[in-house]
Amino acid sequence: MARVHNFSAGPAALPTSVLAEIADEMMDYRGCGMSVLEMSHRSSMYQQIIDDAEATLRRLLSIPDNYRVLFLQGGATLQFAGIPMNLMRRGRAGYVVTGNFANKAYKEAAKYGEAVLLASSEDTNFDRIPTMADVNARIAAEAAGDGLDYVYICQNNTIFGTMYHELPACGDVPLVADVSSCFLSQPLDVERYGLIYAGAQKNAGAAGVTVVIVRDGLIADGPAFAQTPQYLDLKTQAAKGSMLNTPNTFGIYVCGKVFRWVEQTGGLAAMAERNWAKANLLYDLLENSKLFHGTAQTDSRSIANVTFRTGDADLDAAFVAGAAEHQIQNVKGHRLVGGMRASVYNAVTMEDVQALATYMKGFEAQHSLSPRSN
Amino acid sequence: MARVHNFSAGPAALPTSVLAEIADEMMDYRGCGMSVLEMSHRSSMYQQIIDDAEATLRRLLSIPDNYRVLFLQGGATLQFAGIPMNLMRRGRAGYVVTGNFANKAYKEAAKYGEAVLLASSEDTNFDRIPTMADVNARIAAEAAGDGLDYVYICQNNTIFGTMYHELPACGDVPLVADVSSCFLSQPLDVERYGLIYAGAQKNAGAAGVTVVIVRDGLIADGPAFAQTPQYLDLKTQAAKGSMLNTPNTFGIYVCGKVFRWVEQTGGLAAMAERNWAKANLLYDLLENSKLFHGTAQTDSRSIANVTFRTGDADLDAAFVAGAAEHQIQNVKGHRLVGGMRASVYNAVTMEDVQALATYMKGFEAQHSLSPRSN
Repeated sequence: MARVHNFSAGPAALPTSVLAEIADEMMDYRGCGMSVLEMSHRSSMYQQIIDDAEATLRRLLSIPDNYRVLFLQGGATLQFAGIPMNLMRRGRAGYVVTGNFANKAYKEAAKYGEAVLLASSEDTNFDRIPTMADVNARIAAEAAGDGLDYVYICQNNTIFGTMYHELPACGDVPLVADVSSCFLSQPLDVERYGLIYAGAQKNAGAAGVTVVIVRDGLIADGPAFAQTPQYLDLKTQAAKGSMLNTPNTFGIYVCGKVFRWVEQTGGLAAMAERNWAKANLLYDLLENSKLFHGTAQTDSRSIANVTFRTGDADLDAAFVAGAAEHQIQNVKGHRLVGGMRASVYNAVTMEDVQALATYMKGFEAQHSLSPRSN
Repeated sequence: MARVHNFSAGPAALPTSVLAEIADEMMDYRGCGMSVLEMSHRSSMYQQIIDDAEATLRRLLSIPDNYRVLFLQGGATLQFAGIPMNLMRRGRAGYVVTGNFANKAYKEAAKYGEAVLLASSEDTNFDRIPTMADVNARIAAEAAGDGLDYVYICQNNTIFGTMYHELPACGDVPLVADVSSCFLSQPLDVERYGLIYAGAQKNAGAAGVTVVIVRDGLIADGPAFAQTPQYLDLKTQAAKGSMLNTPNTFGIYVCGKVFRWVEQTGGLAAMAERNWAKANLLYDLLENSKLFHGTAQTDSRSIANVTFRTGDADLDAAFVAGAAEHQIQNVKGHRLVGGMRASVYNAVTMEDVQALATYMKGFEAQHSLSPRSN
């Protein structure tokens, strides 16, 4: 069949040109007589692949020389432990809880030291990012008091469809951000952060690769926690060029191709423009709909994950079930919140979004006489 | 160019039929309109892929129902910590050190409890597996004394070309084995072990997948170490079907295809027969050579990694450098030991090995008048 309109929250749609290249190179990578899947990670051929991936990413994000770029495994979940193990040097870090993954990170950090809850939007079911003035005041107070090793945020909340539109002001305290679902969606000022990390399976490539970008001064003394597994020791991983052991070689190769594609299609500013055009097409539709409504507060809306519902669980289920007929896949909301979610990552096209909008309008017309339960 | 003879120690050669299938399915997996790289790990399509991979592996190894099969990330290096964190319940485990990776595991375990050195072959540069009678006597004494949570072995030592031909007798103490480089090379009696794990990048599929097979009773009480990262909690990972978070979806898909290929080509007994035929072709050549000699003691030889040298570092370098002309790749020994290594994993064909043997004989004839330095 033709390729579908894939709104998966991750692993997610990839550019068809990238997939075509991968297929083309599968039996014989550029005349070397083997697949990338078969290459020794210690070979010069493979070193060129990982070096190119890093170099392209450095160009895309203008990563300063004093930041290291790592390609690790284990996803955000493993970094929930790895970050405090490496950085909680005085044993105290601040967490802003804006959803499920921020909350998991917060709970995991408490295994390794004191995790201070700086702010939470749980009271409104995580439909917003907390007011930055309040967050900033709390950070300043904690920093002046017992001190903080870092401030942790989840910059885009995939499940709840929210995103920071302004970063917290952390002063001298390093900012650590899980940017998994907004990584490469838009420009990002690396120098504002001490550490950024992203699961690659949304915008950056293949599941099984975690990109970590860290200021070298933060990891110069090695892990803070004596019993840190060597795999999670960021200083050692940086010294070994992400090859303390065999990395996810094929996943990194996919990421390198996606980085190139982002560069070749205009870089991050152009990407952000296209992404907002796609997201706003849906947000505008939701604002004008009598059936659907968005779940995120307006000033906290995500560039990548558009969450919405009808207010009627049966209608939501009918919408999700009927999508496949229109070649639309993966619009069911996360099991924690229900409703619908359309992830409009980089490789999702405007045509995909238009197809979804057309289906939504048709569904609304068909159900316009139905009573709306809230 | 044509595909080369690839003797890489890992990531390593894959069956060409598997690569062809992957290429064929890259843009559209079996008519579903997307690539496996783009599939939500929560989709029914992907669940079928991981379930099939596990079912095939269970058939291949006759894995009993009371053993869990996990597909994790981070390689053996992450499990070097994960194993003691989960299993070192009384804080004391025995390690047999037969090479670099066993030694790394031994050192990592000492972060989490007492790592008891049961035996080592370092005195002869790891050219052998220690005498099993001695190992068994030591295990019995430790078990009767302060006790052991488990006995740890590295069953095949990729760098040194050695392999256990007999497992230690552990009595009631669970046996834990890193089988990375002999996994699926030959039949294996899962019930002899408490836990087996393998990096998939040798015989089982793609780098970035670690297969863990563990007896459920061993993990029923959760991790032994309170500060175990949740990612490494084997009980939780088992309860979540390896999907505590996004797994290496594509890597697991590759593994599933390789498992199928092993099954379709006759299963593990037939595989072992072919593997020994390949390895023995080289071992016989080495025994009869006046130039080359094998480095592993005869009764400790690996089924998968044939290590050899001339005794003259310049000749070794010339051999490695000249291989590419014969479409032979990755025969350089590990940087820790030098010399040469030919890994003859499942997907390396007899024709590949014959090409190497032909090159070795030709090289020997060419250098037969050279003095041999040891």
